[in-house]
Amino acid sequence: MVSTRNPLNIGAAARAMSNFGFSRLRVVNPYESAFREARSAVGASGLLAKAEEHDTVASAVGDCSLVVGTTAVRHRHLHHAVRQLEDGARLIRRRLRTGRVALLFGSEKFGLSNDDLSHCHWLMRIPTCEENISMNLGQAVAVCLYELIRGSKAPHALEKPPAAAAAEIERISEVLTEAMRESGFLDRRVVGDSEQRIRRLVRRLHLPQQDAIMWLGIFRQIVWKLHHPESAPPEQ
Amino acid sequence: MVSTRNPLNIGAAARAMSNFGFSRLRVVNPYESAFREARSAVGASGLLAKAEEHDTVASAVGDCSLVVGTTAVRHRHLHHAVRQLEDGARLIRRRLRTGRVALLFGSEKFGLSNDDLSHCHWLMRIPTCEENISMNLGQAVAVCLYELIRGSKAPHALEKPPAAAAAEIERISEVLTEAMRESGFLDRRVVGDSEQRIRRLVRRLHLPQQDAIMWLGIFRQIVWKLHHPESAPPEQ
Repeated sequence: MVSTRNPLNIGAAARAMSNFGFSRLRVVNPYESAFREARSAVGASGLLAKAEEHDTVASAVGDCSLVVGTTAVRHRHLHHAVRQLEDGARLIRRRLRTGRVALLFGSEKFGLSNDDLSHCHWLMRIPTCEENISMNLGQAVAVCLYELIRGSKAPHALEKPPAAAAAEIERISEVLTEAMRESGFLDRRVVGDSEQRIRRLVRRLHLPQQDAIMWLGIFRQIVWKLHHPESAPPEQ
Repeated sequence: MVSTRNPLNIGAAARAMSNFGFSRLRVVNPYESAFREARSAVGASGLLAKAEEHDTVASAVGDCSLVVGTTAVRHRHLHHAVRQLEDGARLIRRRLRTGRVALLFGSEKFGLSNDDLSHCHWLMRIPTCEENISMNLGQAVAVCLYELIRGSKAPHALEKPPAAAAAEIERISEVLTEAMRESGFLDRRVVGDSEQRIRRLVRRLHLPQQDAIMWLGIFRQIVWKLHHPESAPPEQ
């Protein structure tokens, strides 16, 4: 982070780094008070405590084999290729297998200077709307880091509550059929394959196990009441 | 945004929405002063001025055909499927073709309550590290909205400065060859295909047009000096 002015942004960058598993924060020539304040903020992370302060970009990126600048602007930087974040992140991930990569963020007000940019191999921009291309610094850091780790967590398992077993669904279908019969619904629409229809209807609900138990209880209660219209419900 | 406490986060959410082209911000039961302060902040957007305030989640999501909650936590929400942001965003984009989708963010401190969650069809989580799953609210909004528009901007054209034409590269090769010959470099290593070697060497530089002009000038100057070791350089 080069010449960062607002301590909240240094803190926000550190927090996003921690969220997405990055650990080496280097600040270049920050506003002294901003860096001090960010470090002493409540909840400031160990990452922030270990952040290195550098006087120059050259020193901050010295051990990196790829230096990528971030920019909101299109077409301004004639001297650099500008990649969409998505494409740039792919190249960065590849390079990270063999060396260190520096991702440079400029000041809130001016972004990276031409001098900062001269240290960059190429630039990366977040695909914002033309109407408002200027992102909050902390949010820009979060989005870039998210894109860098995106897709890297292999198992995209859907964390889903367990689905009801076929036998449970079948019991529901039976009790529902009984309720439909007792209520007179089936008498009014005599169709040959009503059993299959109801079974399909219930299966299309894709009930989680817990809900299946609930529905079975509801339909059983209804069937009971249909059989005993005058009685008080039984004790559960 | 449900029960948001910090005006900076409401402002940050509005800014990210504007960056990524979303326009309808609804706040449910925010801390009164937070909402007022966010609206009156310097640089607050028209989007924030148009933000709707609702008393209940039910009213805020009333016109949406899909309601998605955001959560940092795994495995807690037995009643809901939890999708990775990447997978969830794909489903949301599909649904957006035919209807409105609500993306719910809870309070900074507690996230979404069980009551809030009961309005959701499923949940979505950002793939953060186990060590620190809790994101800053404004950053979480930015990352989710980025994922929603990611890849939607069709042309991923690399914005690159124009490359040098073959004729320019050829001129550089010629002048470089001359410089190498004049400097005695070629005499020391007589190889049959030096011309092709040099041409390939220069092509591998992938020079942008502007740099090609610069390099041509540099080599020409060197050649001139090699020819006129005692002279002052000519006027440019």
